[in-house]
Parts: sequence; structure tokens; C-alpha cells
Amino acid sequence: MAGPDLDELVGRAREGQPRAVARLISLIESDTGSSPQVADIARALTPYTGRARVVGLTGPPGVGKSTSTSALLTALRGEGLRVGVLAIDPSSPFSGGALLGDRIRMTEHATDPGVFIRSMATRGHLGGLSWATPQAVRVLDAAGFDVVLIETVGVGQSEVDVVKLADTTVVLLAPGMGDGIQAAKAGVLEIADVFVVNKADRDGADATVHDLKQMITLARRELRGPSWRQPIVRTVAAKGEGVDEVVSALRTHHEWLVAHGELDRRRAARAREEVAAIALRRLHAELADLRHGDRLGELAARVVARELDPFAAADRLIGELKDS
Amino acid sequence: MAGPDLDELVGRAREGQPRAVARLISLIESDTGSSPQVADIARALTPYTGRARVVGLTGPPGVGKSTSTSALLTALRGEGLRVGVLAIDPSSPFSGGALLGDRIRMTEHATDPGVFIRSMATRGHLGGLSWATPQAVRVLDAAGFDVVLIETVGVGQSEVDVVKLADTTVVLLAPGMGDGIQAAKAGVLEIADVFVVNKADRDGADATVHDLKQMITLARRELRGPSWRQPIVRTVAAKGEGVDEVVSALRTHHEWLVAHGELDRRRAARAREEVAAIALRRLHAELADLRHGDRLGELAARVVARELDPFAAADRLIGELKDS
Repeated sequence: MAGPDLDELVGRAREGQPRAVARLISLIESDTGSSPQVADIARALTPYTGRARVVGLTGPPGVGKSTSTSALLTALRGEGLRVGVLAIDPSSPFSGGALLGDRIRMTEHATDPGVFIRSMATRGHLGGLSWATPQAVRVLDAAGFDVVLIETVGVGQSEVDVVKLADTTVVLLAPGMGDGIQAAKAGVLEIADVFVVNKADRDGADATVHDLKQMITLARRELRGPSWRQPIVRTVAAKGEGVDEVVSALRTHHEWLVAHGELDRRRAARAREEVAAIALRRLHAELADLRHGDRLGELAARVVARELDPFAAADRLIGELKDS
Repeated sequence: MAGPDLDELVGRAREGQPRAVARLISLIESDTGSSPQVADIARALTPYTGRARVVGLTGPPGVGKSTSTSALLTALRGEGLRVGVLAIDPSSPFSGGALLGDRIRMTEHATDPGVFIRSMATRGHLGGLSWATPQAVRVLDAAGFDVVLIETVGVGQSEVDVVKLADTTVVLLAPGMGDGIQAAKAGVLEIADVFVVNKADRDGADATVHDLKQMITLARRELRGPSWRQPIVRTVAAKGEGVDEVVSALRTHHEWLVAHGELDRRRAARAREEVAAIALRRLHAELADLRHGDRLGELAARVVARELDPFAAADRLIGELKDS
């Protein structure tokens, strides 16, 4: 895509046109690491970013994440906020298309121009989520969404990494998943700013809340830095119960972040991760270029002939990459 | 370890002293990517390498890999060959220690100075197997082992990658694993030079051999390059039956490799992979150094302030890496 076309697309995305937003995210997803296009997009968008609140939402399968996201969307819209949702599906073979779950949710919010929902597949991407997700967040931020929700299945390391990109992370749990809580314990405590116990009308909700409180108390003993007491909110997302309390907890946490300088600290950490991920991706791409050329083959032949050891050969390869 | 000590260690490894060999592999495994030690080891060993035949041995769990390896060891020893074994365990939390399975096998071959068995854990290593395994092969090669057996569980991509490092790859199957064969089909056909149907005294052995023959015939239609007809050997490893035929098939394949220039081609491909893996590991380490310094933090702060977009920041980071 040429410069003027890209400028026009960015302009339309900034006006919040859903098609332009979707197109920009597709361009990011299809980037192979060597195209300058994604950098052009980031450069064009950067001046208009920094306003959106980024909220991560994660939890084990079966906890009611989609229902909770949908209920949260409704509640945030009720406050007049525009909301973008990035649903991260690590197992999806699609890239850039809406998934079934989205289509179902879309029907509920489809006619609402203040809502944008997008699935992102994570397989087969070099650098995966840690690379692409901040780019998609930037698009939604520049498009004027007040809140960007990143929804992930809280199972793998890369999903946890994505949630770390958020200003505020909500961890969803449900009664009767005690073993799951135990297993997820360490990781969950580290990333959660707000706990939500969904399906709170079911047996075992009190026990889940009790377990969580104990975990939080134990963990606080090891805390460093400014202290935020993680609230535990009970919800029945399917009936909309408790969702306003979640919105309230998100607001309180955001105010706490600002008051304690934590928002700046988290965003700086996020920028560090993003810049490092982009740099690594670039180096991979440059090395791949050298591999596809004959130079690696020449060096390998000298290794086979034992004229060079492989470390010396790698030194030369890196030397040429640095000169390139 | 200082230079003279390393020279002495290499000297003792070249004499085939098991403790020196084990120590060198431990040094390789514990390398974090920024130490020059592994490069020193490779440089010191390289002149004495190129003689060992590298044989990969893989197959699904339950197929009798350990028993087959042990039987193969006995048969190769019977021909007067010295054999080193690298057992790759992708799930092992150990690094550098012998695993239970090894200890059992070790008792059988423990008193034999012509045998060296070593487990390598793969978790938590940057670049994983593709980086460390060729280094360990080099140690065994320089230590005068005639054959280096790399034994892996044939499940993940990284294990397949390791087997690709071999001159000759043996794929083990067993009767009654029909579904497994179907699932593994594409990958197995691509990497196998010799098929072994173990537990051939069990029901279904004929059907397994039949299925394999069909797969091979179908695949041959798409073959490019010099044509090697993959033999299928039946064994009952636990009784030592058919193992001499495996040794014979290995020898035939090796002769074919030499006669068709394939040995050189495979070793060149292996050297390419190794050099590229080392280069990538170095770049990761250099980038990590920059990350730990303040420079990434400074750039990230400018990204947060929207003075720089993250791609421009990554460009500067790479620029500094290239100047370093």
C-alpha cells in the first residue's frame, strides 16, 4: 500500500470507521517482519495514542470469559465509553477473520458503533502475541476507543505475557475450579489487579472467595512497591449481576495507578517489551535474509572442511549482518 | 575455566576419558549464550572431528526406544565400534544429570569404556536442542566415538529438528500403533532413512509393515534427488532379534550416502543450521545485554512520551547493537 493510501486509511481509522480499523489490524497480522508497512502504520498512529485504558481479562476455560466480556461491554457502554475488544485465541487457525464466538457476540453489539470486536490468531507468528498485540492496541487507541479489552485464555505463557501489557488485569475464576486455582496460583497472583468470581450463585462460591482471600493475604507478605489490595468481585455475568462493581473496581484501580505513578511505570515497561520484541523480530528477519543468500552456505562449507569452527563462522555472519 | 585447563580437559576427552567427555558436555549445557567458553571448546575440538557417523533414532512413546538403543549398542560393540549415545528428553527438568532410564541402561554398559551414554534436558535453553546438540555431538566425535546415536521421542518439532542433524535417521514403529503412523505419516516419511518395526513378534506386525510399504511407495512418486529406498527391518529388540539387520541397514545407508555425495550435502546442511543457530543465540544475548542496560529504558520512555514510535526506537536499538 502506498503512502497516500495508508494516510487515508489511518485518517478513516481515527474517525473510528470500523472497516478501516479492521483493515489496519489485518495489515499488522499479515506482516512477515520485513515489510516497512507496520512501522509506517505505527508512526502514523503514534501521535494520537496514549489515551485508551488497556484492560486485560483472563481466566481458565469454562469460567465464562465471553459472557463476562459481553456483560462488561454493556456496562461500559452504559457509562458512554467506547470499547474495543481484542480476543486472543491461541489455537485458532484463522488469521484476521472473525471466529464463531465473536459472531455470536457481534450480533448483540453489532449495531453499536461504539464497540469494535476482533479476534486475533496467534499461531505461526514470529514473536507471536508479544509482537502483534501492542500494534493492534495502538490502532484501537488511535481510533478513539476509551477502553481496550484484551481477552485471553489464561493458560499459556504467551497469553500471560499479553495480559502483562495491560494497565489493569482482571482474572476470572468460578466456583468448583479449586484445583485450577491452586495450579494457576503463582501466575495468577502475579498478574491480577482485580479478581472476579463469576457464577457466584453456584455452590462453592464462598469457598472460592475464601481461598482467594487467603492467597492474597499470604502473597501480600512478600509484596514490594506500592501496595494495591486486589479486590474480589462476585458476578453472575449471564444475568448482569455484579458487573457494575467490576466497572467500579476498574475505575478505582485506574485512579490508583495514576495517583501512584504506576500507570507511567507500567506503560514504560510495556514500551520496553514492545521495542525489544520489534528489534528481535527485525534481527530474525535480517538473519533469514542472510540465510537465504549464499553466504551462510559458503561459511557452512568451510565448517564442514574444518577450516572454521561454527562459532567463528557465526561471528563472521553476525559481522556481515552488522555491516548491512 | 582458564585456557590451559580447557586444553587439558580437551586432551583428556580426546583420549576418550568419560569424565572429561561428560564435563565438556556439562559446560556446553550450562552455557548461557554470552560466555566464550563453548566457542573455545568448539575451536579446540574442531580439528579432530568429522569421523563419527551420526545416527538419529526416534519414534513414538511405547515403541521400545530404550530397549532398541541398548540392543543396537550391543550389536555395534560386537563389531568393535565405540558408541556414544545422546538421549534427548524434552520433559526432563534435569540438566546435565543422568536420568533413571540411563542409569538402568548404564548398568548394562557401565563397565564398557567403548560406550558413553548421556541424557540432555531441553527445557529452558535458549535455542534449545538445535543449539546444544551439535556441540555435544562434536565432543563425542572428537573423543573418538565411531558412532553417535541421538535418541529422541518423536513427538515435537524440536525433536524432529535434532534428528535432521543425523547422517542416518532410524524411525521406530511397533504393531498396533496404526493411528500413530497415520498421524506421524508426513513427518516420518520425510526424515526416515531406515524403518524399524519393533515388537515384530506381536499381532499386527504384518499390517504395520504393509502400511509402511504403501506409504513409502506413495511417497516415492514425489521424490526428488537421488533415490534411496527406505528399508523396513523387523526386530524384537528385547530378544536381540533383527538387530544385526539394523546394523547392516545403517552400514548400507552410510555407503549410499558416501557414494551419492549425500553425506557431504547433509553435513553442509547441518553446518548451516548450526551456524545460524549460534548466530541467533549471540544476537539474543547481545540484545539482552542492551535490555539490561539503561538504553532500552531511555528509548521506551521516549516511546511513552510519543516522541518516538516503537519501530523507530527498535531501529536505534539495532543500530547500537550493530555498532557494539
